Amino acid sequence: MFYVIGLGLCDEKDITLRGLEAIKSASRIYLEAYTSILMVQKERLEAFYGKELIVADRDMVECESDEILKDADKEDVCLLVVGDPFGATTHTDILIRARKLGIPTRVVHNASIMNAVGASGLQLYNFGQTVSLVFFTETWKPDSFYDRIKENVDGGLHTLVLLDIKVKEQSEENLARGRKIYEPPRYMTIPQAVSQLIEIETIRGEGVLDPDKTLAVAMGRVGGLDEQRILAGPLSWLLRAAADQYGPPLHSLVIVGKRVHHLEIEYGEVFAEDLGEAIGVGRSEGREKWRDVAKTEYGVVVD
Amino acid sequence: MFYVIGLGLCDEKDITLRGLEAIKSASRIYLEAYTSILMVQKERLEAFYGKELIVADRDMVECESDEILKDADKEDVCLLVVGDPFGATTHTDILIRARKLGIPTRVVHNASIMNAVGASGLQLYNFGQTVSLVFFTETWKPDSFYDRIKENVDGGLHTLVLLDIKVKEQSEENLARGRKIYEPPRYMTIPQAVSQLIEIETIRGEGVLDPDKTLAVAMGRVGGLDEQRILAGPLSWLLRAAADQYGPPLHSLVIVGKRVHHLEIEYGEVFAEDLGEAIGVGRSEGREKWRDVAKTEYGVVVD
Repeated sequence: MFYVIGLGLCDEKDITLRGLEAIKSASRIYLEAYTSILMVQKERLEAFYGKELIVADRDMVECESDEILKDADKEDVCLLVVGDPFGATTHTDILIRARKLGIPTRVVHNASIMNAVGASGLQLYNFGQTVSLVFFTETWKPDSFYDRIKENVDGGLHTLVLLDIKVKEQSEENLARGRKIYEPPRYMTIPQAVSQLIEIETIRGEGVLDPDKTLAVAMGRVGGLDEQRILAGPLSWLLRAAADQYGPPLHSLVIVGKRVHHLEIEYGEVFAEDLGEAIGVGRSEGREKWRDVAKTEYGVVVD
Repeated sequence: MFYVIGLGLCDEKDITLRGLEAIKSASRIYLEAYTSILMVQKERLEAFYGKELIVADRDMVECESDEILKDADKEDVCLLVVGDPFGATTHTDILIRARKLGIPTRVVHNASIMNAVGASGLQLYNFGQTVSLVFFTETWKPDSFYDRIKENVDGGLHTLVLLDIKVKEQSEENLARGRKIYEPPRYMTIPQAVSQLIEIETIRGEGVLDPDKTLAVAMGRVGGLDEQRILAGPLSWLLRAAADQYGPPLHSLVIVGKRVHHLEIEYGEVFAEDLGEAIGVGRSEGREKWRDVAKTEYGVVVD
């Protein structure tokens, strides 16, 4: 059996009992290590499972999938992925490949940012399509996300914005010379993300986002025990906070849609207070700003 | 500490290790039993945890939340919910209430239909807003879902349609007489859902859905070990299958959006074959129908 097992969001204890059982029975266990990051290291997982893990990078999962699937018709092989198995297209590809090889497969689901974003207090059924924001360079500023956010904004829906991560990337020079030397991992911060959003708004000028009138919720390490950090306010206030105020990566951002319900605003108040504190204006100021924009721009009044 | 713990989708082994730890430490454990259903009974969970569970129905969670939260500042109290804690607004309400009472809270995430719908092979970031479909009656056929599906369809996005469940509902007579006698639980079937969708399309006539040209994926018991059942095809074909062909409840339906990618269609082929078999036209006929509609209506060609 070929298992694709979701590890959930945070650490070794987020795996399900079903997932752990499969790991215990497996003869080979691969740890997928590029579409996202877990908050713990491979060694800690190995100690916890009492099993050795093989790190599977992008090359391996995409180009050597038959190696991973080898003998999975006769023994149990696991591919461990952060979040839920269906969070990345690559995992769908390898499942299709297994099917073609006649290998039985099983998926063990878990939480992913796609549903844990509910921790923002914003209701999942009010979300439109999800967008990804990649690191801009001097010469490459892809802005198709803007059209998608616009569609959501026009429909009054929330938008989950996933922030880019660069793991095991090569510099242009190393790539050109065929040297397998990799840059240190990079994770987009909330201020970077907000700054890129505002940059594209400035260029495109279609009034989709407004630094002072668009509310957003910034989320760090969702599901992380004592590490989860959620701050909320207008984009301009999120930009004022230093990157480290959002805690260690990964981060995600939610742009609040106009159909927001007063309970969603109420739930976010404590995150707005935290933002007020983070930027030094104080908790009550943070809450007042959140309420104020919710009232004037979203037409939502909280008592 | 007040814990809200997601149980995941299927049975007692879908809980995370973190969730199980909290249960072991708790002095009171409530099992929320109305926003969704788990595929196992309370007694099986109790035997598995070695702990007694208190069933919390809608009245209790909504009207007696202080009873649930009692002493949670001094001891550990757990509320277990099917799927992920943020799948239903009620759970947000009780977390807000806990916060007001100064009770520390912790959420243990898990898979829910909102992300496990990825098992359809349709990519999560291509989904628009989620809609709920309630049981129609002779006199009550709410159709606001139609406008939301239209928004998604216009944007080329997939729509997750959640099907109504009626648990612990009273008949009008019993309600009027104040008798706490409850009807047996009812779960909307896929053919019922498709029939309601087509009924509203017929009434509204805005060309959002077409029985023969709109592809959909029907999902039963997602994440259920040997019980998961996924069938795919045009709406009219889904309607042709008997309700029990979709397996036991719960069921969900995904309406495929026009931006569908050829890999998503390819992944769905096996589900289309299963539908062909289910309605007696054969597996290859099912696959051909799926491919044919994908090609002519969605412009997607699979080799």
